[in-house]
Parts: sequence; structure tokens; C-alpha cells
Amino acid sequence: MAGETVITVVGNLTSDPELRYTQNGLAVANFTIASTPRNFDRASSEWKDGEALFLRASVWREFAEHVAGSLTKGSRVIATGRLKQRSYETKEGEKRTTIELEVDEIGPSLRYATATVSRAASSGRPGVPAGNDEPWGSPTAPAADPWNTPGVPADDTPF
Amino acid sequence: MAGETVITVVGNLTSDPELRYTQNGLAVANFTIASTPRNFDRASSEWKDGEALFLRASVWREFAEHVAGSLTKGSRVIATGRLKQRSYETKEGEKRTTIELEVDEIGPSLRYATATVSRAASSGRPGVPAGNDEPWGSPTAPAADPWNTPGVPADDTPF
Amino acid sequence: MAGETVITVVGNLTSDPELRYTQNGLAVANFTIASTPRNFDRASSEWKDGEALFLRASVWREFAEHVAGSLTKGSRVIATGRLKQRSYETKEGEKRTTIELEVDEIGPSLRYATATVSRAASSGRPGVPAGNDEPWGSPTAPAADPWNTPGVPADDTPF
Amino acid sequence: MAGETVITVVGNLTSDPELRYTQNGLAVANFTIASTPRNFDRASSEWKDGEALFLRASVWREFAEHVAGSLTKGSRVIATGRLKQRSYETKEGEKRTTIELEVDEIGPSLRYATATVSRAASSGRPGVPAGNDEPWGSPTAPAADPWNTPGVPADDTPF
Repeated sequence: MAGETVITVVGNLTSDPELRYTQNGLAVANFTIASTPRNFDRASSEWKDGEALFLRASVWREFAEHVAGSLTKGSRVIATGRLKQRSYETKEGEKRTTIELEVDEIGPSLRYATATVSRAASSGRPGVPAGNDEPWGSPTAPAADPWNTPGVPADDTPF
Repeated sequence: MAGETVITVVGNLTSDPELRYTQNGLAVANFTIASTPRNFDRASSEWKDGEALFLRASVWREFAEHVAGSLTKGSRVIATGRLKQRSYETKEGEKRTTIELEVDEIGPSLRYATATVSRAASSGRPGVPAGNDEPWGSPTAPAADPWNTPGVPADDTPF
Repeated sequence: MAGETVITVVGNLTSDPELRYTQNGLAVANFTIASTPRNFDRASSEWKDGEALFLRASVWREFAEHVAGSLTKGSRVIATGRLKQRSYETKEGEKRTTIELEVDEIGPSLRYATATVSRAASSGRPGVPAGNDEPWGSPTAPAADPWNTPGVPADDTPF
Repeated sequence: MAGETVITVVGNLTSDPELRYTQNGLAVANFTIASTPRNFDRASSEWKDGEALFLRASVWREFAEHVAGSLTKGSRVIATGRLKQRSYETKEGEKRTTIELEVDEIGPSLRYATATVSRAASSGRPGVPAGNDEPWGSPTAPAADPWNTPGVPADDTPF
């Protein structure tokens, strides 16, 4: 892919991720990240909360299961992905568009927390043996984009 | 701050983070993130690893202790921060410059792993009670920039 | 400011920027950037256009006048700024939210175009003499955030 | 490509871009962007310049010619691209590495300047007629990555 609008968001989950499965058995997790900026108020010489940005996000496959199993309401996360616009119709037949985040990478922020990390049993990465001694050596790049799967019909998404 | 060069990096730690303390008792963790891009080779119709980017990174205070206690060699991380240039002299008196990452947020990627997250005992965030029911409500923004501490002399950095 | 969601968008203006003035005489330009990703289709071995992202953007003060005077419908631009969520009510009293870009920097992309650049007469940067020989030396950083102006009431925005 | 480290830099050119041609007639422009952050000093209640980041950048093909023909020493630019690490040997046989920016998009910032933009005669975009009425409609995405050209041997780069 090229020319996509890439974004990194830091914020907190507004609720537990919702994990669902498509008819094809493909996992997807949906959640909202609330990101609150802080502005320095010169009058009071204090930092004050700005208006929060609420960004709806989705993540797919084993990755979705890892997210649903690791993050909960309130978790502070760092996420990077691509902004996607989605059009839909309300029950009243009105056309709407929303902007959402298709997550490429997400993890719990360690700024105010610690984490115990476990390598997933089935990593989904071909050619990565479990006992890989040099894990950052070569097979560390992201897998070929799993979102472009031809076998997943567009109307199969569980929104 | 304004006008800083912000960057997000996804990659793997090349070794365990090195945790040290300044003479003032300030914690700092240093580590290197190896980020390997993948290129789609049309001739073979395969993804192939590109040349890795090795980025030296540092993180401070309790945050540094969280990183050192949570991440190890090979951990896949997502990190965001600001690029900083640092000049130094070699033993031979030669002047050199390096570009490093001052980490603002970092966490283990959940793409190929799961994580058990524990809120840090002393979060360093004033006004965030431990039993906060609505954790994403207001006090979720980053703390006032801890790196601009007047009490930390520049020559106290343990590089 | 800290903790804001920063984003860079590359795309084309869907129409000429609309330049308006607040009651206080503050200039603001509004426009929409259409960003179209391209996906490599392995079946046909061709790049194909993905679904466009349409992002509403605003820019203020002299900067707004520069934008309105330099860019037109179809201009390919590169823009960086902060994502902002805005809530409003429709005439029917329905509550809606949109995500918009507050532009920090924008310029015409030189990928398919050339540009003749003229330094603005009144740069608004204190301490930058017109005949500055070494323009990149020191006073090149962004001005203190002009969007946080206390004198500009929120209800003065011309949306 | 996937998993690359993408970055956006705002700053000023430290000198005119150097335009050269490879033996194959491929244009390349090299230049350095100096990006100076500003920190708010609470003691004096003033913004002060931080330490500048100097980032070496390169751009290829017609795009290189557009850059060389449009930007000069001191130009304030906004650039986005990918960080690349390059290893080389000094005359003394010492091994060094540098981090550079492979520019995907660059343009003059309109913050303190205006620009007159001219569509390039030979845009290099197949299928984009000169008199395109709806220029943002479909052919606006970036061209298929020109840097992965199989016909350009690696040792042909003019560094």
C-alpha cells in the first residue's frame, strides 16, 4: 500500500474491546481510544486538559484476540495505523461517514504501568520457530497485510 | 514544546534495556530498537526483508523502570517520541553526531504476543486515585514534560 | 501542548480554500483534503486506487491568507497538524461529531509541480529581519502557538 | 512496502539542494533540513529555541528536479518520508552509519510565505491528462514507488 494516512494515537480505552467473529471465523476486535491533550495555561501556569479525541478502532485475526485478552476499559495504549473513512446509512436512511483507525500495531503504554509479555503460541508468522534465539534478527517485520485478504467479503465485517 | 520532530517506530529490542541512575537518583533506561521494513518483490511475488533501521532510544524516571521491568531482548515494541541529535567526541577527539529517540510512549506490541498489564503502584500522576472508576475520564493526558526538569544538570546524563 | 494526536496528510484540495474573517478580524481558511491510497493488486499486478479519505481542515491568521492565496482546487498538498473532534447540532437538533485537522504546516507538494516561493511581507515572526542572511539559523522555529489566543472567544469561529 | 519508519519534518534548508544525475540519467537531489524545536521556559515565560536536528534528505527523478528548481537555502519546508540507515567507510577505513530521510513528499511551508504553483509539464503520472477537470478525483494517489526500480543498480547512487 502507498499513500495511506498513517497516524499514532495515545489514549485510554473507553470500554473493554468487543471481540467478534465473522461468518468465516475471522476474529475482529473493536474499541474506542480516548486521547486527551494537555495545554499549558500561562495565566495559571498550570497544565489543563483539552478536549478529548475519541477514535473508533478495529484490529483483526489473532491480533484481535491478543488485544481482547490483554487490554481492558481504561488501559492506556499506544496505537498506530491508518485512518479509514466509512460510509453508512442510519435506520432513517440518512447517509453518514465516520473516520476510524485500522490498527497496525497497538500495545499497553508502560508510562504508568508494567506488563508481563507472553509470545503468542500460534504467532501466525510463517517461518518463525518458537525457539528463535535471535528474535529481532530477520523475521520481525510485519506480516504481509492481512487486511487485504481476498477471501473476506466486504459484507462480512461485523459492524 | 513546539516544532519537535515526532516519530513512531515499530521494531524489536536488540538487547535488554540498560537501566542506570544519575547521581541525583533519576532512573534512565537505554536500548536500541531494530525496525525492519518489508518490500514486496514483484519478480518473486514475495515479501522480502529490507535493511533494518537501528534507533537508539532513552526513557526516564519511573517510566524507565517500567520499561526495564517489562521488556527484554527481542521484545517487539511500538514507541513514539522525538528525534534528538546529540554531539560527542570520540577518545581520539573526533566530533560525531548521532540521532536518538527520546521516548514519550512505549509498549509491547500485541501483534504476536499477549500482555498482563499492572498499573504502577506509584503512578506519578497527581490526582489519580488507585480505585479510579472512570480511568479514561480526565486525568489520562501525559504529565507535564518531565524531561525539562531544571534540577537535572545536562552533565548528569549517564551516557 | 502535549498529548495531541498529530497527523500528516497528503492529498488534493477538493475545492478552493474558503477564506473568512472573524468579527475580531482574524483570518481563517477552511478546505477539504482528499487523500487516496493505492493498493497493489497481486492478481492483476497493478496498483489500484483505494477509498479516499476526506479530511476537513482549518488554518488561521496570516497563514490562512497565504493558503488562500497559494492553493486552489486540485492542488496536491502535504499538511501536518492535530486531529480535533468537534461536536455540533443539526437543524433537527441531532448531535453530531466530526474529526477535523487543525493545520500546523501545509505546502504544495513538489512531486508533480514546481513552485515559486515568496517570503511573506509581514511574517508575524518577531525578531526576523527581512534581510536575514542566515534564515535557517535560529529564528526558524514555529511561533508560539497562535491558536491558544486568549483574546479569541470560542464562539467567534466562523464555522 | 510495509513496516517502514515514517517521519514528518518541518524545518529550513541549510543550503540550496544539490542536483546530480546518475550514469543512467536519473536525477537525485540532496539537501539538509534543519528543524529547531521551541521550548516554553516557565522561569522567563518565553519560548526559547531548542537544539536543532539536522536531517540529510534525498529525493529522486522529476521530483528531484522540481525540488531543485523550487527550493533554496533557507526555504522553510514540510517533508514526509522514510528514515533510512546507511553504512559507509571513511577514508581511514572506519565504519560509520548515518540516518537519512528518503523523501516521499516535500513542499514549501506556507506559514510565512506564499507560493505560485505550476503543474509540471511531464508529470510522470500515466493517465493524467493536462486538462483534467476533476483533478482530485481519481489519479491523485502517489505513483507506484519509484525507488524500487529494478533498473537502478545500488552502486549508481551519487553519494
